[in-house]
Amino acid sequence: MKGYLQVYTGNGKGKTTAAIGLAIRAAGAGLPVLFAQFIKGQKYSEIGALERYSDLITIKQYGRGCFIEREAQNEDVECALKGLQELKFLLQSNKYRVVILDEANIAMHYKLFTVNQLLELIHSSTSDCEIVVTGRCAPQELIDAADLVTEMKEIKHYYASGVQARKGIEC
Amino acid sequence: MKGYLQVYTGNGKGKTTAAIGLAIRAAGAGLPVLFAQFIKGQKYSEIGALERYSDLITIKQYGRGCFIEREAQNEDVECALKGLQELKFLLQSNKYRVVILDEANIAMHYKLFTVNQLLELIHSSTSDCEIVVTGRCAPQELIDAADLVTEMKEIKHYYASGVQARKGIEC
Repeated sequence: MKGYLQVYTGNGKGKTTAAIGLAIRAAGAGLPVLFAQFIKGQKYSEIGALERYSDLITIKQYGRGCFIEREAQNEDVECALKGLQELKFLLQSNKYRVVILDEANIAMHYKLFTVNQLLELIHSSTSDCEIVVTGRCAPQELIDAADLVTEMKEIKHYYASGVQARKGIEC
Repeated sequence: MKGYLQVYTGNGKGKTTAAIGLAIRAAGAGLPVLFAQFIKGQKYSEIGALERYSDLITIKQYGRGCFIEREAQNEDVECALKGLQELKFLLQSNKYRVVILDEANIAMHYKLFTVNQLLELIHSSTSDCEIVVTGRCAPQELIDAADLVTEMKEIKHYYASGVQARKGIEC
């Protein structure tokens, strides 16, 4: 890996949101972006919005499209591993300057794959490519390997007051 | 103000980036967005990228286009106050569902305006509008008034290893 590894973790709002911002900033500079998302498979508003940049941003979703409750199912593991395999191929294509692995931390938290499998993928990249990993519960081995880590820390959240996720704001 | 007030602060990378992501997610849901930026006036990659959404995202920059070193100049104050005035008018137009006040915290830190002036602007909004304030050094009064606060906490940053801001990644 020749580029830098960025990690956005923590329990606060803003991780996937920042990943979307990174994708847009890179596209604004004409850099090709791969936006890969684990766990989630729903067509959230941000995924729809990124489609306007389909000339520069490639979107891949490797989730079943529903949240994992308590324990992961075999199907969740299969989707994630299929993702890792495809990503290894895509990273070796040298087509992307920014690669976002959204919610990869959560995928590891649910044991869909190990941190060693993720680090192996990251290190398999031979191009000058920025890799961005998001999701709460980043494992220490990933933090140690990263060049930049931001913890999005929840100071206050309106979910605590009963506000539901709203279309266009959270999803 | 009928919507919620979100604040993104802290010394870590990801605040303006998250604001860009919020703008994109909202646009993806068809919500009209006002993206107002204090201090900065440069045409960064993200500003260029947002122009592809000009049907839904309106961009306003109220900075001189250069960083403030040590103390603010009269011109910095004039730009910021002109911004507040225009924003008051724009907020009352009821045209926007999401209003981002990027780097407003830094503007207050440099005493370009006070937190009371900002809160007055925010409370002058009569529409059902989400307001998002970013920038390090958010004043306590703003945090107290907010419904959601995320602190972007720097755990590691490659600037410390001498990496310069890169086009498409940071600017």
